[in-house]
Amino acid sequence: MTRRNRGILIVVSGFSGAGKGTIVKELMKRHPDRYALSISATTRSPRQGETDGVEYFFKSREEFLAMIRDEALVEYAEYVGNFYGTPRAYVEEQLAAGRDVILEIEIQGALKIKKRFPDTLLLFVTPPSAEELKRRLVGRGTEPMEVIESRLARAIQEADGIEEYDYLIVNDVLEECVREVHGILSQEHLRVSRNLEAIEEMRGELRHFAKCREGKGD
Amino acid sequence: MTRRNRGILIVVSGFSGAGKGTIVKELMKRHPDRYALSISATTRSPRQGETDGVEYFFKSREEFLAMIRDEALVEYAEYVGNFYGTPRAYVEEQLAAGRDVILEIEIQGALKIKKRFPDTLLLFVTPPSAEELKRRLVGRGTEPMEVIESRLARAIQEADGIEEYDYLIVNDVLEECVREVHGILSQEHLRVSRNLEAIEEMRGELRHFAKCREGKGD
Repeated sequence: MTRRNRGILIVVSGFSGAGKGTIVKELMKRHPDRYALSISATTRSPRQGETDGVEYFFKSREEFLAMIRDEALVEYAEYVGNFYGTPRAYVEEQLAAGRDVILEIEIQGALKIKKRFPDTLLLFVTPPSAEELKRRLVGRGTEPMEVIESRLARAIQEADGIEEYDYLIVNDVLEECVREVHGILSQEHLRVSRNLEAIEEMRGELRHFAKCREGKGD
Repeated sequence: MTRRNRGILIVVSGFSGAGKGTIVKELMKRHPDRYALSISATTRSPRQGETDGVEYFFKSREEFLAMIRDEALVEYAEYVGNFYGTPRAYVEEQLAAGRDVILEIEIQGALKIKKRFPDTLLLFVTPPSAEELKRRLVGRGTEPMEVIESRLARAIQEADGIEEYDYLIVNDVLEECVREVHGILSQEHLRVSRNLEAIEEMRGELRHFAKCREGKGD
């Protein structure tokens, strides 16, 4: 049976500070032939140290609107006045080449993608406990109240669609967590729903074999 | 987050001769604390070398009918004049203790169980290719035509509900296959749908925390 011919589209979301960026980076480093990281396009200005094509593809508003018009984005959203989106060409190219493509986006974009491409796998990354999450939200306790409040509000918002996700990734020990995620992504290729062609093929061959035997052929 | 508190009910089915019995036996041997094997009850007579409580629980027809009446079976079926069924008590006991319970049953029973317990995980085991399956059906080619025909008919029947299964297990190299199945079963505990309580708990704590801060408490 031929399995794992096509890559899986994977969305990684999670609480801020849960370490999703680090997990994704480690996955890419350890299995560069297995995974491809999708880089978002954005209209926001590069921050110091950011390079076009590394953190983001930096686009003008006109360029971004043209991408929307040309359906060159898998999904996009506007966030505090700037556009963010996932360029389609790279995603399709990598999936066709059998690589799993990882998108690191927030929950709204994730649900949009899942709706449009139901085969997408959604992972939600969380710290090991609510206590730990609180600790990260509060930080050293030296930040202004507003910063903490806004982080907390964001966390509540981030937690709002977890039920729509496929897997809950608890990031306690990074090393274990990365191995766990790699395991999940590998096993996911063995899902029946991702192997329907191979199954139909085997069934066809069985039927063909039965027919040949009936006709005493083979 | 507290995860993996309850075991998963796992049904292993597959083509005859695909090696599902061996896979299950190896899983049990390597991880006796993680898995429990459900032993079926049957009204058929023990064959030479079979022991009550090892291969099957051997029951009289009266005893079996009483089990049906008392709802002491998770599922049962009649097959060439004999009853086969899965005793409920053992399954529930082991699941509650956090052990994954493995049932090795055919497709009809599997679908019945999945319908009744939607959380059940269904694995279908197949040889590496249709060619290989044919080879196993034909055997050494010395068997009477009827035997081969009946095996073939059975394989076609066995292939009939694969789409309802969750994972397709290709048994090529046993060692790899057992590791693969153990991986699948471990990752399955990380599914969002199996961790809804933990998620609700974390969300509740976040909300509680927000409320405390609003009241400047905490």
